Amino acid sequence: MNRILASTVLGIAALGVASTALADLKPEEQIQYRQAGYSFMSWNMGKIKSNLEGDYNAEQVAAAANAIAAIANSGMGALYGPGTDKDVGNVKTRVKPELFTNMEDVGKIAGNFVAAADNLSKVAAGGDQVEVSNAFGKLGETCKACHDEYRMKD
Amino acid sequence: MNRILASTVLGIAALGVASTALADLKPEEQIQYRQAGYSFMSWNMGKIKSNLEGDYNAEQVAAAANAIAAIANSGMGALYGPGTDKDVGNVKTRVKPELFTNMEDVGKIAGNFVAAADNLSKVAAGGDQVEVSNAFGKLGETCKACHDEYRMKD
Repeated sequence: MNRILASTVLGIAALGVASTALADLKPEEQIQYRQAGYSFMSWNMGKIKSNLEGDYNAEQVAAAANAIAAIANSGMGALYGPGTDKDVGNVKTRVKPELFTNMEDVGKIAGNFVAAADNLSKVAAGGDQVEVSNAFGKLGETCKACHDEYRMKD
Repeated sequence: MNRILASTVLGIAALGVASTALADLKPEEQIQYRQAGYSFMSWNMGKIKSNLEGDYNAEQVAAAANAIAAIANSGMGALYGPGTDKDVGNVKTRVKPELFTNMEDVGKIAGNFVAAADNLSKVAAGGDQVEVSNAFGKLGETCKACHDEYRMKD
């Protein structure tokens, strides 16, 4: 087992992911599923942002925050398996190879992200717009922390 | 307002969706976000299936079921706005135009889907594999109900 693969497996274990799903998926499928997760979270982030900037619909915000938190907790680490560190044919990825060799740091960032998503979901259920705004900002920071380090620029 | 648009707006209202997010998104973005949601649910359905067929990890199944339920409850009806009934440039959709003119039926199917997803999430939290298997089968039937009527074949 080479060093990159070893650290990836270690990192995936650290993220609490079972091997069941990983074994069945091709690298290009893993890339597509993780992009789907981020894309769907992005839609829900956008909805929360719109609510904070305009008419606030607490029910819509709570549903959006719940979707983000559930996706964040779904074990997406399993979608960073071997072979997903670069484009696979027509399936492009913006992940930097550095992600796969810094799994301890990635694990910390992922932990902060999950915690911030859980907090937003909890606060959104309460319906206090100021608390939601703060929690939303904190969640955005945890997204940015990973994008800054481990995602290629446009 | 033409008949298709009127029934679409009515259908979206029936699905409990606020107008905030809809107003900001282009049709091609709506198509991409809804596909992301279905794709991510599909990944989680696959994980549950693998667990039921192999070693059962209750925690992974509960997280997957929770993601499916949260996505199902996130107001995806907003992603079926005007102009999303057909391909938009390179963004392809397999939705049949009939979906947009049968919103009462679609609303029923969507309601069954959300109820089945909520039930699976509840049952998965309990950890009883037989109950999960039944709830998973029922959820699959509600997916199929929509695919059979309103999604083009491959």
